[in-house]
Amino acid sequence: MAISKTLNELARHVGGEIVGDGDTIIHRVASIDEASAGEITFLNNPQYRRFLRECRASAVIVGREAPGEIQTGGRLNFLRCSDPYVAFAKISQLFSPAPRFNGKISPGSYVHDSAKVDEGATIFPYVWIGAGAQVGKNSVVFPGVFIGENAVIGSDCLLHANVVVREGCRLGDRVILHAGVVIGSDGFGYAGRGSDRVKIPQSGIVVIEDDVEIGANTTVDRATLGRTTIKQGVKIDNLVQIAHNVTVGEFSVIAAQVGIAGSTRIGKNVTLAGQVGVVNHIEIGEGAVIGPQSGVPQSVPPGAVLSGGVAAAPHNEWLKVMTLLPQLPKLWSSVRRLEKQLAQLLRTGEKEPDRDAGR
Amino acid sequence: MAISKTLNELARHVGGEIVGDGDTIIHRVASIDEASAGEITFLNNPQYRRFLRECRASAVIVGREAPGEIQTGGRLNFLRCSDPYVAFAKISQLFSPAPRFNGKISPGSYVHDSAKVDEGATIFPYVWIGAGAQVGKNSVVFPGVFIGENAVIGSDCLLHANVVVREGCRLGDRVILHAGVVIGSDGFGYAGRGSDRVKIPQSGIVVIEDDVEIGANTTVDRATLGRTTIKQGVKIDNLVQIAHNVTVGEFSVIAAQVGIAGSTRIGKNVTLAGQVGVVNHIEIGEGAVIGPQSGVPQSVPPGAVLSGGVAAAPHNEWLKVMTLLPQLPKLWSSVRRLEKQLAQLLRTGEKEPDRDAGR
Amino acid sequence: MAISKTLNELARHVGGEIVGDGDTIIHRVASIDEASAGEITFLNNPQYRRFLRECRASAVIVGREAPGEIQTGGRLNFLRCSDPYVAFAKISQLFSPAPRFNGKISPGSYVHDSAKVDEGATIFPYVWIGAGAQVGKNSVVFPGVFIGENAVIGSDCLLHANVVVREGCRLGDRVILHAGVVIGSDGFGYAGRGSDRVKIPQSGIVVIEDDVEIGANTTVDRATLGRTTIKQGVKIDNLVQIAHNVTVGEFSVIAAQVGIAGSTRIGKNVTLAGQVGVVNHIEIGEGAVIGPQSGVPQSVPPGAVLSGGVAAAPHNEWLKVMTLLPQLPKLWSSVRRLEKQLAQLLRTGEKEPDRDAGR
Repeated sequence: MAISKTLNELARHVGGEIVGDGDTIIHRVASIDEASAGEITFLNNPQYRRFLRECRASAVIVGREAPGEIQTGGRLNFLRCSDPYVAFAKISQLFSPAPRFNGKISPGSYVHDSAKVDEGATIFPYVWIGAGAQVGKNSVVFPGVFIGENAVIGSDCLLHANVVVREGCRLGDRVILHAGVVIGSDGFGYAGRGSDRVKIPQSGIVVIEDDVEIGANTTVDRATLGRTTIKQGVKIDNLVQIAHNVTVGEFSVIAAQVGIAGSTRIGKNVTLAGQVGVVNHIEIGEGAVIGPQSGVPQSVPPGAVLSGGVAAAPHNEWLKVMTLLPQLPKLWSSVRRLEKQLAQLLRTGEKEPDRDAGR
Repeated sequence: MAISKTLNELARHVGGEIVGDGDTIIHRVASIDEASAGEITFLNNPQYRRFLRECRASAVIVGREAPGEIQTGGRLNFLRCSDPYVAFAKISQLFSPAPRFNGKISPGSYVHDSAKVDEGATIFPYVWIGAGAQVGKNSVVFPGVFIGENAVIGSDCLLHANVVVREGCRLGDRVILHAGVVIGSDGFGYAGRGSDRVKIPQSGIVVIEDDVEIGANTTVDRATLGRTTIKQGVKIDNLVQIAHNVTVGEFSVIAAQVGIAGSTRIGKNVTLAGQVGVVNHIEIGEGAVIGPQSGVPQSVPPGAVLSGGVAAAPHNEWLKVMTLLPQLPKLWSSVRRLEKQLAQLLRTGEKEPDRDAGR
Repeated sequence: MAISKTLNELARHVGGEIVGDGDTIIHRVASIDEASAGEITFLNNPQYRRFLRECRASAVIVGREAPGEIQTGGRLNFLRCSDPYVAFAKISQLFSPAPRFNGKISPGSYVHDSAKVDEGATIFPYVWIGAGAQVGKNSVVFPGVFIGENAVIGSDCLLHANVVVREGCRLGDRVILHAGVVIGSDGFGYAGRGSDRVKIPQSGIVVIEDDVEIGANTTVDRATLGRTTIKQGVKIDNLVQIAHNVTVGEFSVIAAQVGIAGSTRIGKNVTLAGQVGVVNHIEIGEGAVIGPQSGVPQSVPPGAVLSGGVAAAPHNEWLKVMTLLPQLPKLWSSVRRLEKQLAQLLRTGEKEPDRDAGR
């Protein structure tokens, strides 16, 4: 907790320069409205500029194109850099070192004889690790985690309490699974109807690549055949559903409560905002951004920026609109009829002069 | 199970009066269509009035403004009070006493030496309680629960099976967390893009005040800095997502599958219906009511009653409407053009007499 | 893993006939684009017909009405049957036999003295089974599962890791609960407002009939009084919320992230697509199909096919539409006014000849 860095050290760490006293000692990060002496904060959103005046932080991280703030009197020290938010994140990491774990297998856990737990890995009590499973170097497995047979957990992973990784699924290195995540549950697949419905065995696996982070109680289903893939650097929030045979491309970001149906391919660097629903067997192109609550019924080209849904409005107004909405086809016809009638009327009107002329 | 109360006792308990035989013995509550002798039921929704005729309950709780029911022949006993639903709830509690637990720490659980478990608290097997954590008087911690280091659980709390309360988070008294709830998972925060993305350490906590109840598999993220706060008396349903740094005001009610994005402030006595999504950094004013599935993209004033979304309609009709909806701007232009043309035509029409006059 | 069947055996198993060499040996199923020698695949979706040409499978399951594929040269063997997808599912099951479990109660689990675990049931470590609970023949209970007092689990059930079945709830035979499922959490019921709010005890249970499968982290609340019922053969996907006193009819299918509010009755053979929300106290008729993300605000007749919501569109276009949508009532009035004015104009126009005639 008692970490101390000078501003100069921090500037070197993030590649920025100091305007003010580089020997100032910093112990912690804080938000701009709450920071006090010994703390560093940041200014990214211009909306927060108003807090600068009263700010009691020992330093403020600012962008390069913000010289105005820096001349407010010299009271504050500034760390100027190209991306203040990224710099804040890096400095915040410096002051929040990962907790240390004991690197031991608790005798209160179950590890099958044929499972392999690498050096430095910490296995808490009430963890169950099946036959043939592997846990890599320095990974931490919290209480209540289930690691199925032949599942593979890479190095430096963090599996929070009550995570489930079912048989055969594979995690890369530095993967973080938050509490209650389920990896490798059966995909939702049946053939036939009613009492003749037959379950399609879900024999595939889930592959999660390096540096993926998955939020609490999110579920990722195993493939029917083959694999469900979460590629390198993907970040997934809480309570998200990823169905069987889905692929999520590198560095994509998926917000809370999103649902992605079976076999859909999400490209690289895609952003899905909260509660988005994506149908099955489509493709979302690289870099696409889908706004909150949108339903995505068909493939989306790379780079597309889509929104969907109807925002909340005062109930009575919304009720009137929703009563009229189903009548849109009728309204459309009315307008078309009016256009025709008027066009005819105008044509008649145009002819009149001729008639007049003929008089 | 063998609890017996006279109608007079129940009337005193809820502040009501008896029409009928106050010495009638009641053993249980039941719904109006299923109640039989020895049971008390209630009539709140007028739709259920039709069940009164055949009702075989020993007594019916009714409102003060419902004298009609009371004169249906004297066959039934009535308990009249100002709010029959609240009275029913209170009487139902009388007949559903909390189960007794043994008030012991199971030897099959793990409690760190420096953790403090108060007298009367029950710790089931397979519970893990970290260093410096506290569990208050008479709280019950079911199997599979994880309580992280320095987390604080108040008195008379109920943590159902497989709940996770991560390090440093704090619960008040009489808090109920249903099975699978996750408190204090990392907020979803990153800076930068693609392979340069940096995780922002989530160093804050979650504070849950007294008398809060949270539904199964709901997730509440810890703050980036500071705290995520669920204030006194808040009730949250299943599978809800509360992001980092959110505040939910006193006595607010949040239905299932709602998602609230980061730093948003929900006021006091707010109601969010099922599957509502609320964006980040906004404020929902005291007493506001947001209808099911609504997306809330901006701040909402106190007392507002909002709805959103498009209700399900027959697929073919909906398809027609949705094909026309994107053409709304075009329709609008058509109407404006028609208005202009017609206005001109009418003006011309008005001038015509003049022309005629000039002939 | 080393299962071998001849095509003839497979044809007999699913009731189909072979076009080609019935003695061909099959070891596995595979998808049509990845299958190789020794594997059988299927052709159901005509979109995949293009893969047939290059297909290296030892056999392809096809429908009866697809003779074209069968005459592409005799290179491939075909298994013709009435429903290729069902046949594929059945053959896939042949090649994916259920894993064997040891049929023992782990000494690392807790089973109350008065609980009854039938012969052949497997109880993994860290399972907790309360007083009076029952687990039927050959059922498998994975680590971290909680089975509350007097709960009943039928025969041949599969309860994956960290499932919670609370007190008194009852499962039929061959029920599969995926990891993290919560059965019997309290329904969301309160009477009164603000600080006077009273919890309504949730004293009912959940009854799950035979052959039901429920996806990871789904929650099913216990009834207030009586029961929440999931009938025979129902299939429910991940992260679904089923509220108290709901009934889901036989063989209905509920996709991921659906929410069903209290006391609603879902009929037989109903399909609810992903993220659908259904309000409380309504009825969805037999065989109804509700499209993804739809909100269902009122009862739905049997056989209805409904859709809802607004699909994602390019953000700027969507913004224009959403700005105009609230003005739909105004647009409507404009059109009505135009119609009146034009009708009047036309009537005037019709009269004009008379006037002319009078000249």
